[in-house]
Amino acid sequence: MRKFVTDRVRSLLSRSFQHRRYAHLLSSSQSRFLSSAPSMASSSSPTSSSPFPVTCQNINPKVLECEYAVRGEIVTIAQRLQQELQTNQGSHPFDEIIYCNIGNPQSLGQQPITFFREVLALCDHPAILDKSETQGLFSTDAIQRAWQILDQIPGRATGAYSHSQGIKGLRDTIAAGIEARDGFPADPNDIFLTDGASPAVHMMMQLLIRSENDGILCPIPQYPLYSASIALHGGTLVPYYLDEATGWGLEISELKKQLETAKSKGVSVRALVVINPGNPTGQVLAEENQRDIVQFCKQEGLVLLADEVYQENVYVPEKQFHSFKKVARSMGYGEDDISLVSFQSVSKGYYGECGKRGGYMELTGFSADVREQIYKVASVNLCSNISGQILASLVMSPPKVGDESYESYSAERDGILSSLTRRAKTLEEALNKLEGITCNKAEGAMYLFPRILLPEKAIKAAEAAKKAPDAFYCQLLLNATGVVVVPGSGFGQVPGTWHFRCTILPQEDKIPAIVSRLTEFHQKFMDEFRD
Amino acid sequence: MRKFVTDRVRSLLSRSFQHRRYAHLLSSSQSRFLSSAPSMASSSSPTSSSPFPVTCQNINPKVLECEYAVRGEIVTIAQRLQQELQTNQGSHPFDEIIYCNIGNPQSLGQQPITFFREVLALCDHPAILDKSETQGLFSTDAIQRAWQILDQIPGRATGAYSHSQGIKGLRDTIAAGIEARDGFPADPNDIFLTDGASPAVHMMMQLLIRSENDGILCPIPQYPLYSASIALHGGTLVPYYLDEATGWGLEISELKKQLETAKSKGVSVRALVVINPGNPTGQVLAEENQRDIVQFCKQEGLVLLADEVYQENVYVPEKQFHSFKKVARSMGYGEDDISLVSFQSVSKGYYGECGKRGGYMELTGFSADVREQIYKVASVNLCSNISGQILASLVMSPPKVGDESYESYSAERDGILSSLTRRAKTLEEALNKLEGITCNKAEGAMYLFPRILLPEKAIKAAEAAKKAPDAFYCQLLLNATGVVVVPGSGFGQVPGTWHFRCTILPQEDKIPAIVSRLTEFHQKFMDEFRD
Repeated sequence: MRKFVTDRVRSLLSRSFQHRRYAHLLSSSQSRFLSSAPSMASSSSPTSSSPFPVTCQNINPKVLECEYAVRGEIVTIAQRLQQELQTNQGSHPFDEIIYCNIGNPQSLGQQPITFFREVLALCDHPAILDKSETQGLFSTDAIQRAWQILDQIPGRATGAYSHSQGIKGLRDTIAAGIEARDGFPADPNDIFLTDGASPAVHMMMQLLIRSENDGILCPIPQYPLYSASIALHGGTLVPYYLDEATGWGLEISELKKQLETAKSKGVSVRALVVINPGNPTGQVLAEENQRDIVQFCKQEGLVLLADEVYQENVYVPEKQFHSFKKVARSMGYGEDDISLVSFQSVSKGYYGECGKRGGYMELTGFSADVREQIYKVASVNLCSNISGQILASLVMSPPKVGDESYESYSAERDGILSSLTRRAKTLEEALNKLEGITCNKAEGAMYLFPRILLPEKAIKAAEAAKKAPDAFYCQLLLNATGVVVVPGSGFGQVPGTWHFRCTILPQEDKIPAIVSRLTEFHQKFMDEFRD
Repeated sequence: MRKFVTDRVRSLLSRSFQHRRYAHLLSSSQSRFLSSAPSMASSSSPTSSSPFPVTCQNINPKVLECEYAVRGEIVTIAQRLQQELQTNQGSHPFDEIIYCNIGNPQSLGQQPITFFREVLALCDHPAILDKSETQGLFSTDAIQRAWQILDQIPGRATGAYSHSQGIKGLRDTIAAGIEARDGFPADPNDIFLTDGASPAVHMMMQLLIRSENDGILCPIPQYPLYSASIALHGGTLVPYYLDEATGWGLEISELKKQLETAKSKGVSVRALVVINPGNPTGQVLAEENQRDIVQFCKQEGLVLLADEVYQENVYVPEKQFHSFKKVARSMGYGEDDISLVSFQSVSKGYYGECGKRGGYMELTGFSADVREQIYKVASVNLCSNISGQILASLVMSPPKVGDESYESYSAERDGILSSLTRRAKTLEEALNKLEGITCNKAEGAMYLFPRILLPEKAIKAAEAAKKAPDAFYCQLLLNATGVVVVPGSGFGQVPGTWHFRCTILPQEDKIPAIVSRLTEFHQKFMDEFRD
């Protein structure tokens, strides 16, 4: 597969990220397929007659360049179809839209963990904590935990701005949770609580990127938050390809090759993004592989940006999540050896509390003066939301054996995780039965990323429709079934290969219907376009 | 005062914002006073021997340039003193640190509005909504409102990512609240819910600023979020001075002059920031003045960025808050006439729910394609936190006459607002009694911004201590009294004048002690430094 690297790099330029910058740097040729997202040309209108002072011709071009496929064109179409269904029940060959485009479990019916919500409610309205009725409504340990958290907040003021990094007592709890997970020390002063993981990623990109000559090594396929934030901050995405043939393996030789290519083009590579478990690819890295990655970053002086938001989502007994910090520390590497940022979120895991916008980054191996700069940027936004902060402390310190809630908590957690395991397996097997589709195992995370071998006739039809072939497939799928998946071109893929990302999140009772609708659609599609 | 404009502009360059950019544009001379914030030189360390790949020499220089005085050096010192007090009670001539540096009411003991917290708690844990004990703990209308809000959320999933602009039903409520406030229509599709007002301001700066040749007209003094976000996005802050002599009046002639100066230097001015009621200056604009501002923006093709987060904080009977949208519409100007963004937050008003990070911007007068770009940027961060979204809907739609909670709600609200009125007056009068201090009335917002006529001897002592004179004063005040206020240099001020910003937020029973400590300190200070 290595021989395609140059072609890949070149062809990537015409796709969803950084094409203008990379084009400039590598003088690429144009791809024959348009991106599935609205192009700049189509979203810009002539302005000489515009009554508005702000137009697409005079806004920040970095905003124009940025794309975010997970909420891109396909979702806009889906929302329109949903409205049509609401006003006219029989208007489409399906009853409802099933959103498999985004890792948003509770939107598809997953229930929140009761203990977490009890604590949040009590912290929101502490006035009821010592009322007798409260004993009947809330578990004893939730009441205790709420008191404990309130005592960690200066003045028990859950309505006050906190320290810019988050409430110190909650950071203590999170650090203790990291220590328990890794078996290595964690420092609460290394924790920055954030409104989900996204703002943390933005902060790091803002810190590291000075110009388009600064590059960030990103996996391809990648979660488009990375391409979007690199574009918004004006840097260059330096792609490295995961190897689909080895279950989306991450090869050090590929990292080296892409790093050298970037360097030879004058790009100064600042950091390496690794998403583990993988999004959209679902693989869980082996510890040995992680050691090699740590070694590579140390050697090359790269910051390791470790997206570890799916750390609780591992579905195969032969794999385990290891944080990069644990791996680095177990290699004997300390603060002075490697600069490492670990991102965590309350949106994923078995909790799936996306709407709470809680998360944190743990920063190790940065000098005091750089840390001061990061603190300053965090201060400009004052602090992240306190409910999200509390929830981040809860997911890193859930009920323990012996606590009143432990049994119900662990039943809820295990119920969700074992159901996700079954759903991943069912969908993966169903996809692998379809003509021309191959799908790697979802070892972790919340997604399947099947490859579709599209017939030439389908590719031609897509071209005629001015769509990328995978976007064409996804749109026909949506029109026929109401199932929303995201084209692989939104994540990046080896040129000439086509994929889509589908979450494993619809509730289990809906999976058989999804499988049969998908199967029926695919057969018809192939019947229509088979060469 | 006009004759000082050139000097002012020049001298401003050496202060806290944009000095490098502006220096480049206007070739200014250096001021003789250092900024109170740590300088780049002092926060950077030599790196050739650094073990870290990231240093202050190789991070994004925009991050280095950005400053945020409200949580700057003075707060770091205060936090150190607080720790010293905790370990050694008698270590300082005061018992506690009183944080008057930031508009954070609940951190100083302000209680949240009960109704709002009841609704939030119920939405966090809807499982208790139909339990009998809940009737005893929560008001009937809070239970009803929680049901109503849950019904507006698809699947009642408060733990799901929402629409990127926020939950549609909540935007409907907010739009209705705006209509009730203004008497003009509001469209829920114009509302973008955000985690407090700060991310909304960042989004607009990100959209408008392409390079350092793009300028944003900002009041001086200003809330440093604006200087910080302009610096982070690489634009140029174009200052316009509020006239202290006329109670921080905003003169159109000054706007015109500064706009022309900027244009002549090649700066393309994109927007005008107006903070009303004023921060840090506390003035409430007269409607006539607002009309002139609208007219000016329309004429010059500027986006009007209206910071209206203090809309509920007006303390004088002769003034009233009018939104800029209401003013523009009452002039007959519609969508095609003026591009207007109004920022609102749940952190201010009588609610003061800073920790909830709720807020919104209402965007009117932007073309569909530009709106699409703003939507895309909002999508990259998925959505703002749902509790904050709910709270934003509540503050724009509080209990009404006849609702069970109305009486207690309005008693809480009026209690807070009348107490703030008294506190503002007491502090203002106390300050005006001090030698060399003049303080304008706080008509609104949460701050006083007194001017201190510092003796030459004090200025020399500050110079020797390498501090701006106002920072020097504020630090001595902190050391002597434990009261934390922010030097005027963090907000900008007419060169040669010195101020500080002090919130009116300490609880009323603490005000007499603050006044006497402040008075005692100031007398001693003057005795020491009087010329």
